[in-house]
Amino acid sequence: MTTETLSLVGRDLISMRDFTRDELLAFLDEARAFEDFREPILLGLVLGSLFFEPSTRTNLSFSGAMQRLGGSVLGFADSKVSSTAKGESLADTIRAVENYCDIILLRHPLEGAARLAAESTGLPVINAGDGTNQHPTQTLLDLYTIQQRRGRLDNLKIAFIGDLKYSRTVHSLIDTLAHFDNELFLISPPTLRIPAEFLEELDARGTVYSEDEDFFAVAKDVDILYTTRIQQERFPDPVEYEKVKNAYRIDREGLQKIGDEITLMHPLPRVNEIATDLDDYPGSAYFEQVRNGVTIRKAVLSMLLGKPRV
Amino acid sequence: MTTETLSLVGRDLISMRDFTRDELLAFLDEARAFEDFREPILLGLVLGSLFFEPSTRTNLSFSGAMQRLGGSVLGFADSKVSSTAKGESLADTIRAVENYCDIILLRHPLEGAARLAAESTGLPVINAGDGTNQHPTQTLLDLYTIQQRRGRLDNLKIAFIGDLKYSRTVHSLIDTLAHFDNELFLISPPTLRIPAEFLEELDARGTVYSEDEDFFAVAKDVDILYTTRIQQERFPDPVEYEKVKNAYRIDREGLQKIGDEITLMHPLPRVNEIATDLDDYPGSAYFEQVRNGVTIRKAVLSMLLGKPRV
Amino acid sequence: MTTETLSLVGRDLISMRDFTRDELLAFLDEARAFEDFREPILLGLVLGSLFFEPSTRTNLSFSGAMQRLGGSVLGFADSKVSSTAKGESLADTIRAVENYCDIILLRHPLEGAARLAAESTGLPVINAGDGTNQHPTQTLLDLYTIQQRRGRLDNLKIAFIGDLKYSRTVHSLIDTLAHFDNELFLISPPTLRIPAEFLEELDARGTVYSEDEDFFAVAKDVDILYTTRIQQERFPDPVEYEKVKNAYRIDREGLQKIGDEITLMHPLPRVNEIATDLDDYPGSAYFEQVRNGVTIRKAVLSMLLGKPRV
Repeated sequence: MTTETLSLVGRDLISMRDFTRDELLAFLDEARAFEDFREPILLGLVLGSLFFEPSTRTNLSFSGAMQRLGGSVLGFADSKVSSTAKGESLADTIRAVENYCDIILLRHPLEGAARLAAESTGLPVINAGDGTNQHPTQTLLDLYTIQQRRGRLDNLKIAFIGDLKYSRTVHSLIDTLAHFDNELFLISPPTLRIPAEFLEELDARGTVYSEDEDFFAVAKDVDILYTTRIQQERFPDPVEYEKVKNAYRIDREGLQKIGDEITLMHPLPRVNEIATDLDDYPGSAYFEQVRNGVTIRKAVLSMLLGKPRV
Repeated sequence: MTTETLSLVGRDLISMRDFTRDELLAFLDEARAFEDFREPILLGLVLGSLFFEPSTRTNLSFSGAMQRLGGSVLGFADSKVSSTAKGESLADTIRAVENYCDIILLRHPLEGAARLAAESTGLPVINAGDGTNQHPTQTLLDLYTIQQRRGRLDNLKIAFIGDLKYSRTVHSLIDTLAHFDNELFLISPPTLRIPAEFLEELDARGTVYSEDEDFFAVAKDVDILYTTRIQQERFPDPVEYEKVKNAYRIDREGLQKIGDEITLMHPLPRVNEIATDLDDYPGSAYFEQVRNGVTIRKAVLSMLLGKPRV
Repeated sequence: MTTETLSLVGRDLISMRDFTRDELLAFLDEARAFEDFREPILLGLVLGSLFFEPSTRTNLSFSGAMQRLGGSVLGFADSKVSSTAKGESLADTIRAVENYCDIILLRHPLEGAARLAAESTGLPVINAGDGTNQHPTQTLLDLYTIQQRRGRLDNLKIAFIGDLKYSRTVHSLIDTLAHFDNELFLISPPTLRIPAEFLEELDARGTVYSEDEDFFAVAKDVDILYTTRIQQERFPDPVEYEKVKNAYRIDREGLQKIGDEITLMHPLPRVNEIATDLDDYPGSAYFEQVRNGVTIRKAVLSMLLGKPRV
């Protein structure tokens, strides 16, 4: 697949690292035009949606995007139903599935699976999450939400809080934000710090950041607070979990102490990291992120399939 | 959501008790026009079909209705695939899913779940069964079948037979029949009698009814015989089950003793409550109920979505 | 359902034995016109896809065919979700499902299930595999592939290799090839020989065949090599399995010893019967079979539903 200047037709969407700053801005620009757009420009086209690990939200979001543009969806939501159970390789599965559809969406527990899939077919492949690696449409929808809420993608103070070690969403967003000039605050318990490779990348690109354990120490300066779910099962010692779980729980009272200008983001699903009394707080953007996810995915499907609006 | 006179656009369909007699008759009237109707009036609209507990029949019936009218369907048939497994609340799930679709269909094991869902979103929500509580489109299709078969909804003698304690279908239909003037015969083993609250409601509305254990004592007078599946697992004592299971089994020979004017109904699936030699008995309406289910659901989807025929 | 001369409208596709030579050639002829055809001739029509046993490939292939022609699909990929779990008979399930769709596709673990389904409904029923019995669209796509690759369906030397005892695909194809004049080589370990009934049928029709254990003894004469997956679990004695599993593994080196004119077929999924170094061998037709499967299924759906191209 060749890349013309800013044409993204036929491109794979495997990792944000494959895209230039201009290309990712092109996705965001195009998304703006897709906000309320629901004409059947993808009529007769088929999305092959292969979830080797379940993910309701991403799965349904892509289905909604495809169907709203007149396209159809086939696939499976669960690897137990797939031919993998008979010992088939991923490459063979992809080479079969490419005959049933026009674009492939893949969620897989193993890092690198989406890249391998893309190399096995001439169809565009979209990575819907491969292990703890990448989930590029999540990153695009996060950027889109930041841009909508703050009017820009740079000169922002952005705090990430919670599980910075395992969160694919955080890794991918931080990585991509390195294209822009922002200051990052990385707040986590010591056991869930961001892996060193990401800090090296930030250093290499000259991004200003700080690591901290105490959120309230830095909170009053930030524009955006990106929270994540801390998964209890990551903690070998339950006492350790008990210590941190409430330190990072945000509620209305806590947020008002900080200020009323903060944009509050979360990839969802949440358990109790964000109290429901924040759902109607003006800065809360997490349900808007869900809405933006459909918008971004409509734009992505249209662009990769080469079926523009009009 | 406001209710104009007999416009049902944007309404939720959670419980039959939310609807006036005129409103439910409006559903039945509209259904008549949908019998063989299959124009794509719902093209571009998406049904979010969330089954937190499996139900092939209701699930496929709604999908068929939506697709026959040109709409699409997304969702899950099984809660194991949903974000609930990650501890997400139902309200959060609904607030995510409302971004992917135009109307939500919910089946949930807990009573009240559909009401909670409806309160969490501005989209219309249809209850496809919440615990032992309500299943309103089943009730509508039952009423529609009665109306088609007997030409009216009152002045009928209707016998319910089998499990009157747990059957959501029976509760909801009896409850709704209280809008009309009929005589009810409630036939069950002592352990599976209808709960007292339903009898109080019938008393309050002045509906004539009687309870009995022996079907054949009352059978020859009835116009409609509504049978249900007796679930063996409801009986702590297997001897008790053995005693009743055949008392309520209907076959052609038994029915001909009673008369040939009876309309025989069953919500399906059946196990052995109705012998297959009754499948071509002229009064057997149970497969017609399935057909009417699709008709009713086409009408319901069209009315709640505000997309009328033409 | 009646059969007019070569009109296949409304016919069931249960077993290749139900079709004359002319009828099966009609499927292949029609398929040729469907190669790249994707107009919405099935718009508004619904395929009821009932998989009582999982099969990603067949399931998705039919979905792709239906959706590419503008139709929709509903159903289940797994019997656990079906009403069968509540003890419903297959006939009852079919008589319900016929109300939701226009044509039924059935995969079932029991032989004869598809025939029973067809007898329970007036809709056309397509057998997507019933036990070890029949899988007619697999046979049609195999014939179509042979015809495309070799330009004819007779005067061919065709070797079947591997598990000839349990392979539904092999049984059905051999059975159908008896309509044509070919020479068959049946290569298997002694424990996996083709059942006697198939040999009797070949004898009755005067088809020339030979049985052998050693593939390379006959290999250099054949036009087509049809390989299958040998399932380890068929061997009570693991030593027996170890002895044969590599005898039938084909790789590029082995195939080049034989000649370069061989067409290599496999129903997929493969495990290691065909080395991946054969994937770009000119004679390899197994991924083409997958593509042809969609083409054949588009033709089959269109013909049985009576919705021709134009």
